[in-house]
Formats: sequence, structure tokens, C-alpha cells
Amino acid sequence: MRPITRPPGPSPFAAGNEHMTPPEIYAVRDGGGPNSSNWRVRVVPNKHPALRVEGDLDKRAAGLYDQMNGIGAHEVIIESPDPEFRWHHLPHGHRVEALEAYRRRMHDLQHDSRFKFAMLFRNHGVASGATVDHGHAQLIALPVVPPETERMLDGARQYYEMHDRNVFDDILHQELDDGRRLVHDAGAFVLLAPYASRVPFELWIVPRFHATRYEAANRDQLEGLADILALALDRLDRGLGDPAYNLVIQSAPYGLDDVPWYRWHIQIMPNLTRVAGFELGTGFFINSTAPEEAADFLRSLPA
Amino acid sequence: MRPITRPPGPSPFAAGNEHMTPPEIYAVRDGGGPNSSNWRVRVVPNKHPALRVEGDLDKRAAGLYDQMNGIGAHEVIIESPDPEFRWHHLPHGHRVEALEAYRRRMHDLQHDSRFKFAMLFRNHGVASGATVDHGHAQLIALPVVPPETERMLDGARQYYEMHDRNVFDDILHQELDDGRRLVHDAGAFVLLAPYASRVPFELWIVPRFHATRYEAANRDQLEGLADILALALDRLDRGLGDPAYNLVIQSAPYGLDDVPWYRWHIQIMPNLTRVAGFELGTGFFINSTAPEEAADFLRSLPA
Repeated sequence: MRPITRPPGPSPFAAGNEHMTPPEIYAVRDGGGPNSSNWRVRVVPNKHPALRVEGDLDKRAAGLYDQMNGIGAHEVIIESPDPEFRWHHLPHGHRVEALEAYRRRMHDLQHDSRFKFAMLFRNHGVASGATVDHGHAQLIALPVVPPETERMLDGARQYYEMHDRNVFDDILHQELDDGRRLVHDAGAFVLLAPYASRVPFELWIVPRFHATRYEAANRDQLEGLADILALALDRLDRGLGDPAYNLVIQSAPYGLDDVPWYRWHIQIMPNLTRVAGFELGTGFFINSTAPEEAADFLRSLPA
Repeated sequence: MRPITRPPGPSPFAAGNEHMTPPEIYAVRDGGGPNSSNWRVRVVPNKHPALRVEGDLDKRAAGLYDQMNGIGAHEVIIESPDPEFRWHHLPHGHRVEALEAYRRRMHDLQHDSRFKFAMLFRNHGVASGATVDHGHAQLIALPVVPPETERMLDGARQYYEMHDRNVFDDILHQELDDGRRLVHDAGAFVLLAPYASRVPFELWIVPRFHATRYEAANRDQLEGLADILALALDRLDRGLGDPAYNLVIQSAPYGLDDVPWYRWHIQIMPNLTRVAGFELGTGFFINSTAPEEAADFLRSLPA
């Protein structure tokens, strides 16, 4: 899935190389037919999918183990035909088109009743696990809600039951009052280094408005997100020298349409250090850069 | 904690450089005083510890967050004074001394009533997060049982409650009957590629005898472990070209002395690919090498 050595050669995602990918699922283009070269954002099935979209879900025992066939969708969202593009260097309107492509694909896949959850993620740089240099996001839709997602949802639900308040609201209030972990307050969205960050320079983008799922975002919200996400990625790029990173949109599972206790948000984890055996074995992360230091450094960069 | 670039220079762990580490806690040596050069295995405090051993445990709220001071032990177990040594190339008796050093330090730290759990791990190679080339293991003792450990324990306990059988026994029975994921059966220990391996060539060493905690291992058991662990690391080295790996000893928490439902075991995770945002965000691992293929390949290597 993610060999550390990568094949050389032309970008399979560049304009003119549309034949190197499976036929497109969605595109933003100025005229021209499907799979022609005149596009700005293009969504294609992953050529080496982790899951297959054909077939019925089949769960069974394998002796004492649980087995499930690999039903799911695995798509690639190419946000620019330029092999060298950086997300935060795209013009504002183009960034909004990329976010709208994410939204639309996550929305469309919910109509497949086999899918219970979709995760949009972006691996940038070799150290992040990216196997194609040409920047792109990926979308995986799954027939189950994954365990880490369940734990996050359980935590948020329990917090709400105990306090009758949304935990993301409480986080925003505390971080805006405190200020030490705040990187940027853009009104509708807040960029912060989360308390007890797992890795150096971990960043979260949390909406100040209430919304359970990313797919429900409207045009105004995507416009705001396009700017604060560009700000986050630009600061990381300039401050840390274009680090590799993993970005995930943590949206609620399909079917969880409007609950008061959860809120979608974005998590960005730069790959400045290695997640090693201790972290995988314990679930505890050792992080030598305090989020207060990270936020201070990123705030202090010239705009 | 784990910068990807590492300082050049002489090994701080080599014979003759004992002054480059804090004073030793334990050593296996042929005469000579503490911190002299004539040693085979040496244990020192980590010079850049993730946790500090001094002070009382202090848990408090930080607004809505939970805070705990970083009380714990962080030790380094250097298994050979040779900067170029490979664990599996050490003579049998030397390997037993290394395993005994692990055992003794894990055992001794339980006397500190602040500690509830200790994890022995070994990061080999840059891709594993190792920051010193000279091979070594690390031991971290914690004032809490970490979340992943709790989940593993909960799973094993629930399995026992449902079936009145130890899940590790059932795994061994199934794997020995089936054979497809079996790499080596050494009688007292079994080396296998676990069902639904998280990463390519993940390996587990599971004792066939019942023991909740590694620290209870006797001399005979360490002799057997010294051989099967060397076999595992040698096959990975020869089969995959000295891959980076993380190794952890999954022992029960302190205080859980003899329960019928858990068993200590060793997990080895080679770092052939990257754990990326999808894995961290979901807890699902995408692995392109089936454990059956990995086991078949490792079994087929000449002894």
C-alpha cells in the first residue's frame, strides 16, 4: 500500500495523463468532456484501492476471528492538474472548489446503504505515507464505524450527558479565553494547537457554528474554511520548511445527522517525528514540543 | 523526542564511553566497578527522559482538561557494548543476559508504588524512531495503565468471561492446527504472523505456558525466548534486508499477578510502510501483505 520507495516517471495525476487513472467520478472543468484535460479538480477511483466497491457485505467467523470482505469506496481527489501545486498556494476560488469536491463525494457516498462512515484524508510528503508526489486527497468509505471514531464519539457523547454542553464548544471557549494554544481566530473557524497534542505542531480547525457532519457545510462555510486551512498549511510550510503531514476531516458517521454532542473538525498531524512502538502499543504519545510553544511560534510568523 | 536527523559522533553507548550516559542502574560485567568498561549488558537512565522519576504523582484539572505531571521511569538497556551489534547475532548466553536485564528492571520498578505499568520496547533503525544507532531497548514505567493496554486487557477478560478459555490459548490452538500463519513452533513459544496483522510482516511470539507477566519468567523460559526471538529477528533481517522494527513486550500491569485470562507476549512490527493519517484517525490498519504470505515467506527461508 505505501512502499517507502516510489516509482519514478510522469505524474499520473497531471493534465494530459488522464488515461493513467481510472475514468473520473467527478470533475470541475471549463468545458470539455469527461476525462479530457481541461480540469481544475478531478476525482477518480484509487487505482490500487484498499477496498472494493463491488459486491455485498459479507461478515463471517474465521474460527475464533472475525472476517469481513473488503467492501468500501476508495477515491482520489486531485485538487490541481499541476504536479507541483501546494494546496495553500491555490487561488481562493480553486480551494473552495476542492473543499466542495470533498463535500460532494462524502455526501454522495452516503446514498450507498452499505457504507456507515467516510473519512477524507490528505497525506502530504513521503514521510506522511504519500506514494504519489502530485498532491491529492483520498476518501475511504467503510461499511463499519472504525474503533477510534467510536471512541471519539463515545467521549463526546458522555461529556454531553454529564455537562449538557458540547465538548467542542467548551474547548473553543477555554482556548479563546486562554489564548496560549490559539493560532488564529477567523470568526467561523478557530485554528488551535490542541491541548495534549499527540505530535509536535498538531493543529485542529474547529467550526464555531454547530454542525455534526462536514457534508452539511454550505458555500459560506467552505469559503471560510478555504482561508483558514490555507493559513494553517502556509504557516506549517513557511515555519517548518514544508513538512510532511497527515490531515483528516473528522466527520460524524452516516446516519448521525444532527446530534448536539458532536462537531466535525479537521486534524492536521505533521510528520516531524516518528510514531513508534511505544505509541502503538500504549496509545500514549510522547511529544517534545508543547502545543503552547507550537502555537506561539506559528502565531509569530509574519502573515 | 525523535528527530528524524540524528547527531553524528561516537556512540554514547559504546564501551569506553560510559561517561556519556548517566550512571548505570544495572550491568552484567566480568569484574570491574560500576560504570567501568568491562560490561556485556548495561542499564542507564535515559538522558532525555520522556518522564521523570522524582516527585509525587499530581493529577489535576486544567480547565476542562486532565493534567498529570510526568512521573515515571525511562531507562535504556544496552544489550552490547559493540555499536554495530545485532540482537540476533549475540551468543545465546548473552541474549539470555539481555532478556534477564529486561526482566529484572521490569520487576524492580514494580516496587515503586507510583507505577502501575511498565513497557519494554525496542526501536531498531531510523524508520522505527530510533535516535541512537547503537542498538538498545527502552523501559518506560507509568503511573497509569495506558488506554491501548486497557483495551487489550478488556478484550481478553471479556473473551474469558464468555468462553471460560484464555484467548491466547485459543489463538495458539487455531494457529497450530491451521498452520498458514505459523512461522515457527519452538515448543514453549510459538512465532506467528497474527491474523489481521496491522503491518506487513507483523510477528507475535506467544508462550504456550501460562504466565500473566513477563517479569515472572524463569531461566528456562528466557533460554527458550532467547532462541525464538533471535530466529524471528534473523528471518526478518535476512528476508527483508535488515528492516527497521518496533518490538514491544506486552506484559500485564503491575498488580495483575496471576489472572487466567491474560498472557504476556511479544509483538514485532517492521516499519516497511508508514502508519498514516487514516490509521491514526480510524484505528484501522491497511496492510497489503497478508499474514499468510508473510509467514510462508519467513518459513521458507533457509534455517
